[in-house]
Amino acid sequence: MSTFVFDAYGTLYDVNSVAEATEQAFPGHGETITQVWRLKQLEYTWLRTLMDRYVNFWEVTRESLVYTLDSLGLSCEPATFDHILDRYLHLSPYPDALGALEALRAQGHTLAILSNGSQEMLDRLVANTGLKHALDAVISIDPNRRFKPSHSAYELVGDTIGATTDDVVFVSCNPFDVCGAKGFGFKVAWIERVPPQMMRDEVRAASVVGPGTMFRLLRMQMDTLDFRPDFTIETLTGLTDLQTAG
Amino acid sequence: MSTFVFDAYGTLYDVNSVAEATEQAFPGHGETITQVWRLKQLEYTWLRTLMDRYVNFWEVTRESLVYTLDSLGLSCEPATFDHILDRYLHLSPYPDALGALEALRAQGHTLAILSNGSQEMLDRLVANTGLKHALDAVISIDPNRRFKPSHSAYELVGDTIGATTDDVVFVSCNPFDVCGAKGFGFKVAWIERVPPQMMRDEVRAASVVGPGTMFRLLRMQMDTLDFRPDFTIETLTGLTDLQTAG
Repeated sequence: MSTFVFDAYGTLYDVNSVAEATEQAFPGHGETITQVWRLKQLEYTWLRTLMDRYVNFWEVTRESLVYTLDSLGLSCEPATFDHILDRYLHLSPYPDALGALEALRAQGHTLAILSNGSQEMLDRLVANTGLKHALDAVISIDPNRRFKPSHSAYELVGDTIGATTDDVVFVSCNPFDVCGAKGFGFKVAWIERVPPQMMRDEVRAASVVGPGTMFRLLRMQMDTLDFRPDFTIETLTGLTDLQTAG
Repeated sequence: MSTFVFDAYGTLYDVNSVAEATEQAFPGHGETITQVWRLKQLEYTWLRTLMDRYVNFWEVTRESLVYTLDSLGLSCEPATFDHILDRYLHLSPYPDALGALEALRAQGHTLAILSNGSQEMLDRLVANTGLKHALDAVISIDPNRRFKPSHSAYELVGDTIGATTDDVVFVSCNPFDVCGAKGFGFKVAWIERVPPQMMRDEVRAASVVGPGTMFRLLRMQMDTLDFRPDFTIETLTGLTDLQTAG
């Protein structure tokens, strides 16, 4: 039996599910807000870790939304801002998430999340979205105060649930997280939600490469960072078929 | 007298001056390549520093170009690839760069570059573009093997040319670099090449927010990262008028 450790944002949960709220608040700008916000959110985790200026992921998520609206010259009532931010506690799980977790659990595997999210925002998210019962542990990087892909983020899997590195299959859609987890020593499964041909077709079909396509170009293709995933599959459902032993 | 320390890429040199080469090699894709390449190049400096997987900036620049072309499903002859990469040794200085350096030197200030670039690529760049004679020192972050905004990158100013932190005015167009340098303790002048109203007008005028606009939204507006510049000016020429003493 293995321990399957999942990234949360972008892997089990669709971060684009904030788009309805951003478009409703700022008609015509929802797509740009959604993509700039997510791109800056991760930038800020990296920059704050490099600068030794840690704040938790809820604060990073808030600050990156402030940045996004300021950059676009948009403003809103505090209640609207809070409503958009609150979407991070109610993100939609990908359609394959719950089924994949239940199928892996039926195989006897241990299941956990390791996420940049603060413990509180993760606990509320899994409770709000029906995934809580399918998970054995929800681990935040917060105690070590360094975001992924720092080694100290991945160390928390062993420190928290006692899994040995060899027994962990780390699952992520985020290429930088795949490389970070692989560099740490986990076996890694990459969920490749935008395969190369799909990406190319999308670019060829666009008269102007818009924000959503830019996001997929920047953050959903495998990085050139020394490491490759052990497994590449297109949906979480495929995890039950992996030969992960050893 | 102060020591003015300049960021190179994006501050003295226009990184968009690779666009002619990318468009010539890949007609219709030049703009997307140029922006994805620059966005990923900096991502890779941050990610590699976080992962403790340092390679120098020439290699990062190469790897981010590989990533960019792969993501877009584009390929070319090695000579074409090398020609594009070689543009980083021949970037165009901003029109205000040389004049500003000469005017500051006439005031008696010491002038240096502190850049992510490797020593070799920086030395070749300043020699190729006529800025060499206007600078007292060209400092690469390479000896400390951590890219900006790590403190150890900024430490090299004192270690290399002996300037005390209080005497340094750090000059950058890059908001993350402004915040990093300010967090380190330098006085910082931000060259705000895309003021808020210009950014807003650009977004309002676009039917689809394209790659260049995304770049300016993501990387040319002041970050929400605890620090603010001491001085905000629109061109390098304005540096001669700053009251930087004390």
